[in-house]
Amino acid sequence: MNDLKLALLGFGNAGQAFAKMLCEKQAEIRQVYGRGVIVTAIATHSKGTIVDAAGIDLVKACKDVTETGKFAADTRGLCGLTTFAVIEQADYDAICELTPLEIFTGQPAIDHIKAAFGRGKHVISANKGPIAWAYDELSAAAAAKDLLFFYETTVMDGTPIFNLVEHTLKFCKITEVSGILNSTTNYILEELAAGKEYDTVIEAGKKLGFIEANPAMDIEGYDAAAKVTALLNVLMKAGITPDDVDRTGIENITLEDIQAAAAKGKVIKLLCKGRLTDGKVEASVKPVEVDQSDMLASVDSTTSIVSITTDLMGKLSVIEHAPEIEQTAYGIFGDVIRIMELAPTSES
Amino acid sequence: MNDLKLALLGFGNAGQAFAKMLCEKQAEIRQVYGRGVIVTAIATHSKGTIVDAAGIDLVKACKDVTETGKFAADTRGLCGLTTFAVIEQADYDAICELTPLEIFTGQPAIDHIKAAFGRGKHVISANKGPIAWAYDELSAAAAAKDLLFFYETTVMDGTPIFNLVEHTLKFCKITEVSGILNSTTNYILEELAAGKEYDTVIEAGKKLGFIEANPAMDIEGYDAAAKVTALLNVLMKAGITPDDVDRTGIENITLEDIQAAAAKGKVIKLLCKGRLTDGKVEASVKPVEVDQSDMLASVDSTTSIVSITTDLMGKLSVIEHAPEIEQTAYGIFGDVIRIMELAPTSES
Repeated sequence: MNDLKLALLGFGNAGQAFAKMLCEKQAEIRQVYGRGVIVTAIATHSKGTIVDAAGIDLVKACKDVTETGKFAADTRGLCGLTTFAVIEQADYDAICELTPLEIFTGQPAIDHIKAAFGRGKHVISANKGPIAWAYDELSAAAAAKDLLFFYETTVMDGTPIFNLVEHTLKFCKITEVSGILNSTTNYILEELAAGKEYDTVIEAGKKLGFIEANPAMDIEGYDAAAKVTALLNVLMKAGITPDDVDRTGIENITLEDIQAAAAKGKVIKLLCKGRLTDGKVEASVKPVEVDQSDMLASVDSTTSIVSITTDLMGKLSVIEHAPEIEQTAYGIFGDVIRIMELAPTSES
Repeated sequence: MNDLKLALLGFGNAGQAFAKMLCEKQAEIRQVYGRGVIVTAIATHSKGTIVDAAGIDLVKACKDVTETGKFAADTRGLCGLTTFAVIEQADYDAICELTPLEIFTGQPAIDHIKAAFGRGKHVISANKGPIAWAYDELSAAAAAKDLLFFYETTVMDGTPIFNLVEHTLKFCKITEVSGILNSTTNYILEELAAGKEYDTVIEAGKKLGFIEANPAMDIEGYDAAAKVTALLNVLMKAGITPDDVDRTGIENITLEDIQAAAAKGKVIKLLCKGRLTDGKVEASVKPVEVDQSDMLASVDSTTSIVSITTDLMGKLSVIEHAPEIEQTAYGIFGDVIRIMELAPTSES
């Protein structure tokens, strides 16, 4: 059987970690499925673009990027194609949308995905923008052509959330979701509680890689709003965008607020919530005081939690403890495995 | 297509709740799968036994048992068959093993399951005894005949644990499991902490239905040991029995112990643990002092937690919040749905 061919759009930390996981597990994949997974294209803005129908040497690609920040000049298939040209012209079965998040529009990732569906290709998105901004349209486009569309990585990395509901909670109706979906705010609130200044915390967080170049995404709750929107669109067919989320960030939380909460035995967390009330979905992202004995209070540092309330199975929570980049990679890897299992194979 | 035919062995609270869920969801099941699920036999020790190939009236069966403690004399198919005779003679596709747990042997449930496999029937077990005492033998018997063998309910009711790993953590190796798997001990420790006497707590717990007739099962850690054994046998191919678990219950925990822990900012929980060390599985059930800020400390009352450490996906936890009997029923229901999806259909 033919190998499954992937085109990676973007090759940042998550893409490189995914490439390494794929190399490590290649033999096991071939043993289980009788065919492998190869990457036939990688399109990036700053590292160069490779198109190689015979399969890119991922070990070399990772090594070159680690050492020099871009693909080496001697790389077979190195070319000047744009990302859209790669989507339109390369030989692949599925794209992995790994480009940087554009949180206010979801673009150009949405158009990448539409173009891939237009060519009859499957799509994996680790980019939450498209799920937050255009889920209904994209999932309809996939369904119309019997194509697969997976996005487990968009909320809490590879932690099973969408897969959990689809595969293990059959016939359950989801009535509420809540959680701490942006763990960067845990970190910031903890550092503030320790008496550090806002600017110092942000600078240190940037250096540690916890905080994005534009810290407003985390601090003002945009990232959390995009994630709760993705959850609600997929799990509750909400049909909303991040603009519909009642959003308050932690930018106005002061050391005094944190100390006042502590004096009451409480701790401040940026909580996401979505609920179905009278057939209407209400979504919010807000700093909330929770009891120190509450499970949410124990979700600290880079840990995150999602709680799902259902009609048949009551309330469940899933916690991802202190993830590393490998857990993001696993989200993509798991979606690739689902495509291996579900996509019809084109015989060679 | 033929309906899926179930034989229920046992019809206690969980069996009745499952029967009600099946009635409620019957129309939706028929819509999704184009066929329904009927119960063609119910075998019990104290309520009577019904064998009815046309499908038992579950609404009537539940009503009669609620009102009189047993099936009514006018029930079609009421008979004097033993459980083994039902397994050997009735017309069904799968048994649901719901008989009371015999925690020191797993019998007669193990023999029920063997007899069903012997007839080429699928098996759902909500009874943890067989998974703790004879998992390897039973799963081999199922595999030898291409039969389905599901047991999600045996640990934390319908909370996806076995399904979570099988369906959403593909290619992950489990290296450690831990958790609070017996929530009755949460309740007892909390009541003791409130200054109540052991005997008073046990009697009150029995009346509330939290504590079994033989409280040693919970208090001495036998139930927790059976559950951690089930987890390890399935998730880590441990091939152990509850006798291999290093087990200490909470029977010797005193109010003084609890107060001494509290003085250190800690709380006592009965913790289950299983780990792969140098290719060998080590399992324990022990009262442990955990920090009040630890997530485990927030798992109180009837709530329980399991944490799973993997090679590719790091550490995840799943929490079941304050379950009712419906969550046990959903575990059985979910396994029935998997059989609907996976079992070859015999055309009528």
